[in-house]
Amino acid sequence: EYANYFSRQKNTNIRLTLPVVCFVWQIAMIILFGVFIRYDEESDTHWVETKAHDNITSDIENDFYFRYPSFQDVHVMIFVGFGFLMTFLKRYSFGAVGFNFLIASFGLQWALLMQGWFHSLDPQTGKIFIGVESLINADFCVAGCLIAYGAVLGKVSPVQLLVMTLFGVTLFAVEEYIILNLLHARDAGGSMVIHTFGGYYGLTISWVLYRPNLHQSKRMQGSVYHSDIFAMIGTLFLWMFWPSFNSAITDHGDGQHRAVINTYLCLASTVLTTVAISSLSQKTGKLDMVHIQNSTLAGGVALGTAAEFMISPYGALIVGFFCGIISTMGYIFISPFLEKTLKIQDTCGIHNLHAMPGVIGGIVGAITAAAASESVYGKQGLINTFDFTGDFKDRTVLTQGGYQAAGMCVSIVFGVVGGAIVGSILKLPIWGDPADENCFDDEVYWEVREHPSHSGVQQPHDPQAARPVSPFSMLCLTISQN
Amino acid sequence: EYANYFSRQKNTNIRLTLPVVCFVWQIAMIILFGVFIRYDEESDTHWVETKAHDNITSDIENDFYFRYPSFQDVHVMIFVGFGFLMTFLKRYSFGAVGFNFLIASFGLQWALLMQGWFHSLDPQTGKIFIGVESLINADFCVAGCLIAYGAVLGKVSPVQLLVMTLFGVTLFAVEEYIILNLLHARDAGGSMVIHTFGGYYGLTISWVLYRPNLHQSKRMQGSVYHSDIFAMIGTLFLWMFWPSFNSAITDHGDGQHRAVINTYLCLASTVLTTVAISSLSQKTGKLDMVHIQNSTLAGGVALGTAAEFMISPYGALIVGFFCGIISTMGYIFISPFLEKTLKIQDTCGIHNLHAMPGVIGGIVGAITAAAASESVYGKQGLINTFDFTGDFKDRTVLTQGGYQAAGMCVSIVFGVVGGAIVGSILKLPIWGDPADENCFDDEVYWEVREHPSHSGVQQPHDPQAARPVSPFSMLCLTISQN
Amino acid sequence: EYANYFSRQKNTNIRLTLPVVCFVWQIAMIILFGVFIRYDEESDTHWVETKAHDNITSDIENDFYFRYPSFQDVHVMIFVGFGFLMTFLKRYSFGAVGFNFLIASFGLQWALLMQGWFHSLDPQTGKIFIGVESLINADFCVAGCLIAYGAVLGKVSPVQLLVMTLFGVTLFAVEEYIILNLLHARDAGGSMVIHTFGGYYGLTISWVLYRPNLHQSKRMQGSVYHSDIFAMIGTLFLWMFWPSFNSAITDHGDGQHRAVINTYLCLASTVLTTVAISSLSQKTGKLDMVHIQNSTLAGGVALGTAAEFMISPYGALIVGFFCGIISTMGYIFISPFLEKTLKIQDTCGIHNLHAMPGVIGGIVGAITAAAASESVYGKQGLINTFDFTGDFKDRTVLTQGGYQAAGMCVSIVFGVVGGAIVGSILKLPIWGDPADENCFDDEVYWEVREHPSHSGVQQPHDPQAARPVSPFSMLCLTISQN
Repeated sequence: EYANYFSRQKNTNIRLTLPVVCFVWQIAMIILFGVFIRYDEESDTHWVETKAHDNITSDIENDFYFRYPSFQDVHVMIFVGFGFLMTFLKRYSFGAVGFNFLIASFGLQWALLMQGWFHSLDPQTGKIFIGVESLINADFCVAGCLIAYGAVLGKVSPVQLLVMTLFGVTLFAVEEYIILNLLHARDAGGSMVIHTFGGYYGLTISWVLYRPNLHQSKRMQGSVYHSDIFAMIGTLFLWMFWPSFNSAITDHGDGQHRAVINTYLCLASTVLTTVAISSLSQKTGKLDMVHIQNSTLAGGVALGTAAEFMISPYGALIVGFFCGIISTMGYIFISPFLEKTLKIQDTCGIHNLHAMPGVIGGIVGAITAAAASESVYGKQGLINTFDFTGDFKDRTVLTQGGYQAAGMCVSIVFGVVGGAIVGSILKLPIWGDPADENCFDDEVYWEVREHPSHSGVQQPHDPQAARPVSPFSMLCLTISQN
Repeated sequence: EYANYFSRQKNTNIRLTLPVVCFVWQIAMIILFGVFIRYDEESDTHWVETKAHDNITSDIENDFYFRYPSFQDVHVMIFVGFGFLMTFLKRYSFGAVGFNFLIASFGLQWALLMQGWFHSLDPQTGKIFIGVESLINADFCVAGCLIAYGAVLGKVSPVQLLVMTLFGVTLFAVEEYIILNLLHARDAGGSMVIHTFGGYYGLTISWVLYRPNLHQSKRMQGSVYHSDIFAMIGTLFLWMFWPSFNSAITDHGDGQHRAVINTYLCLASTVLTTVAISSLSQKTGKLDMVHIQNSTLAGGVALGTAAEFMISPYGALIVGFFCGIISTMGYIFISPFLEKTLKIQDTCGIHNLHAMPGVIGGIVGAITAAAASESVYGKQGLINTFDFTGDFKDRTVLTQGGYQAAGMCVSIVFGVVGGAIVGSILKLPIWGDPADENCFDDEVYWEVREHPSHSGVQQPHDPQAARPVSPFSMLCLTISQN
Repeated sequence: EYANYFSRQKNTNIRLTLPVVCFVWQIAMIILFGVFIRYDEESDTHWVETKAHDNITSDIENDFYFRYPSFQDVHVMIFVGFGFLMTFLKRYSFGAVGFNFLIASFGLQWALLMQGWFHSLDPQTGKIFIGVESLINADFCVAGCLIAYGAVLGKVSPVQLLVMTLFGVTLFAVEEYIILNLLHARDAGGSMVIHTFGGYYGLTISWVLYRPNLHQSKRMQGSVYHSDIFAMIGTLFLWMFWPSFNSAITDHGDGQHRAVINTYLCLASTVLTTVAISSLSQKTGKLDMVHIQNSTLAGGVALGTAAEFMISPYGALIVGFFCGIISTMGYIFISPFLEKTLKIQDTCGIHNLHAMPGVIGGIVGAITAAAASESVYGKQGLINTFDFTGDFKDRTVLTQGGYQAAGMCVSIVFGVVGGAIVGSILKLPIWGDPADENCFDDEVYWEVREHPSHSGVQQPHDPQAARPVSPFSMLCLTISQN
């Protein structure tokens, strides 16, 4: 019986697939980088000549100094923020922070190539020139895939995650190209291109990979006291650095400045309404860590598009106000509904933290763009903010609002359709994913040295833990020891 | 008997009050922001015109680039630094990091308004124009309230904390106005306006809320191994980023540069003397985590006023040297005295980390200011450092020293008197604070899923944990299972 | 018998030595700083005159704004990165993060003096003028000593660590002077001067202090679940901020920009090959946290010298590719060999994370320098990158490659010889180091309040934990209680 419990019906041996995938893909990256990627003029030693040529008087004009502090904040969000946010499960923290590390490291390389091909391939040389803004964009692209990871956390193998990331980054680059370049929508903080796309991509994959018997790993679901505190590390670094996320690639000067102020205010407002709804949801007004860890961030997501606009400080507060309410109610009402009715098992609740607030963000962005006016922005300010130059110099704000809304739809479509296709690929029985009763358990893919009972996990497959020690056996042991 | 233990004589149900307070205050913020708060000229889209008008040649001259890296460091100190520093209690980490999050998020909004009204209300338009420096100041203001939280940690309800923050921010803005604007004292890192005020504010509230039977929650006091490591996350982020704290709003250029060097050196020195005294205090020279977590930071507090002055590198080391000694001895000798004799229960020992070092910082600032000279500072340097311009252009350094000392007294008075009044309000039996035996227990205000015995907390209300399992009952269990 | 177990044959009482060393050294620092250290012209109030004199139009030209964000990232690496990376041991996290804090705080003061005397002593005034770049260099110097700490973690007393740091910083400043100034080698990220030196310094000390009976503390070795997650905090902050480490003191403009891009790419590549080899090393392809925590960082070490060169993006990926493989295989094959055959006990595996990758970094640097060409760098770019000015203006890239290799050897020699001498000093029986069976145990030097059995550590000196409770004794207890 206990032996049975241990038997894993599924083969989770990834000793062949994982190393092969890692090696093949890393070698492919090296070759492709060799062919395509070069330093841009601000990171090349020829910068000294560029400066002279462009009459740049100071090294501080290098884009590096405008964007590097924001880049590092975004970098922390990707690796510590997303990684630790997902450590909340009692016994899947290695997988959370470790696989997050793996797929982000792969994804950012692939993103530099994909985004390069679509956005900055130099037609003359056939090369992609990268600088600090490329690194930020690569991190952004990876964020979409890490969001999707949140939906399937604990239920997939690292090989599946790498496949999911390969396709995710590819889809991301295409939808981003359509939304930002073809539709010329603005989305500096990625409400649409990152959060909506990533959210629906992950949810659809999770829907395809639905596990009707997931309750068999119920003992591993939920958090323990310490894992909730680890998760707060992720929450706080995401929350604190979100102003950098939304301002990292906005216009120099007032653009970055304003995006920071808006995001800072919006997130503060979200915290208060999250606490309010969380408290309302319990008989004695107790707070739920799940809400505090996640819904407090919804405001940052929802301001991803409009952060650089003149939404005004109180406008930012209002967006945060409603996002805290909606996201927390999502955890209370919508997540159970999704699981029961739509058969979507969403481990981290990314629907409430990314998908829904992302859609809100797209709508807020469309409305704010459509309502923009020269009296508020100034003539040149309006042109700068919406980049009404070149082919788009005659676009009106109303048209812009329409294209923003169209961008929103593109990101949803790409998420759902892409997720359905990729989900089908991941359903193939070759990826080493865990059996239902071994989900959310680090022991499947990690060497875990410690005996788990010390960490507060009830281990039904440990017969000694499942029932009290018989005094007779103890007597025998005692005698045998003395 | 055990049932009795569970009975909570006090009603800690906050399901009505907490959501109401959160909603009312957040809505009030939105309305007041709508009426008063606007982007300043460097974060407004009209910046493009401002630049042209002011002959600013580069976007990098936007104040954003001078202050944003420091701002983010301060932001980390407020949310991760203060939040995690307070997680040291074995079973109050949710409250530490969660309520810290809540009150900081509320406080910074109210601070933008209060500080705006007092410091930067534009008389013509009746508006407050905010930029990155306003965000730093709001975070600073919140710091005062979080310090105060340290004194009452585990003994109050979140509603009380919100009330405490509302009044704390209000008092802060007034005393800051008196000290910085009317007295024209310098206090860039807030030894006086932040630490001294916040310290005495919290200590006085704690004195008013004295609980003679607090020993009833003795089982929940103190730390466990892991909670001490979590607290070190807070300590280190506070320690590392303190140079940013003390330099965030100092003068561009040498002002920020010097404040960083001074604070960096001062804090390094503090660590060595803290370790020395901590080791001396134990029979075998063992170190105490409480000292390492807290007293190592005292140097940063004590250099809050003088960090921007020409205190010279060895001067900074000397300040750190004495602060490490005094603060650690505070934990060993003064805290027990305060509790027994003065009836001040100071959970985090903020008297040793903020109040006392803050006063030292005020004194160091007054002396250093009074000793300043043109030979050391240069003629223009002296004017810049002490802002001897406008109404204050004839002030001598000696006079300045006197006003610095006067500022010190103002901050103490505001802390003590304000704390007494607010403490009295918080004593009303309507706030849902916990009973003596339920202090320091997250289960009062948080959904805690895990059985606590796994985390090293002795649970006297768990009969199975309080006494050894009877072999007879075990025999029965064993039989019944087989 | 059990009493025996408790007896510590060695005297670990450090109540006299630790405070005395801390006080004496801190006082010495104050005196020496008073004699030697002054603000440099960019952090002095006379900067206002310097600016006018040098026609500097904006405060943003102050070196502070070029380097402060990188400095703070480096600072986080030193205190949180190194500190938490070493918390992986189940019961030595206080020592890891606490002693790291202590020796870094002491070391940086001594480093400012030593590096000042060797690199920037003003011959006219006899003073050392410090600014933000000095702080970065001091942090770098300390890094060398923290690496060495990794080899002896858990086996030495804090007094020994302070002695080791005093000599380590001294040796560092000398070898750095020889390598960077005399040989004029380039080593911006310190593959040679920091990692190779620090690695061999620590390994040699550990070799001298070899403990044949270290297996007596076997119960304390290895990690528990939560300690591995704490260690990941260190890993990630090191990993994320390594681009700042390698670019912190490179040339303004393209130099910093390029170093960031190279390091970012190199580290991403390392993660994939680390995962691949780690998975290959286990029967079922499971990953080992030790590899993920450490080997993922090897790429940053190995790019320390070449990060500022035009190694090209794919070149950076290649370096990372091999470093992940070599470092992980080091943990699997070389570390056991070192311990058994060479009698080097390397607690953290610094040979695999710092020494070996450091040597690789030196070689990569030498080759890349020798292969540099004007066609790639541009005429002025080549001069800037290798600083072919003054005495070295006629040096060819081939000669430069030779000097780079020579620098590599100097760092190894300093590490080994210095380590042998310092190791001999540390072998004196006066430093209060722990007995073999008490290694890796925080209780030796720290007040630990909590009963350890709650945290998953088997405590053989606890008779109740070592053998099952006798039902008879339990019966007695039960009776006596009822």
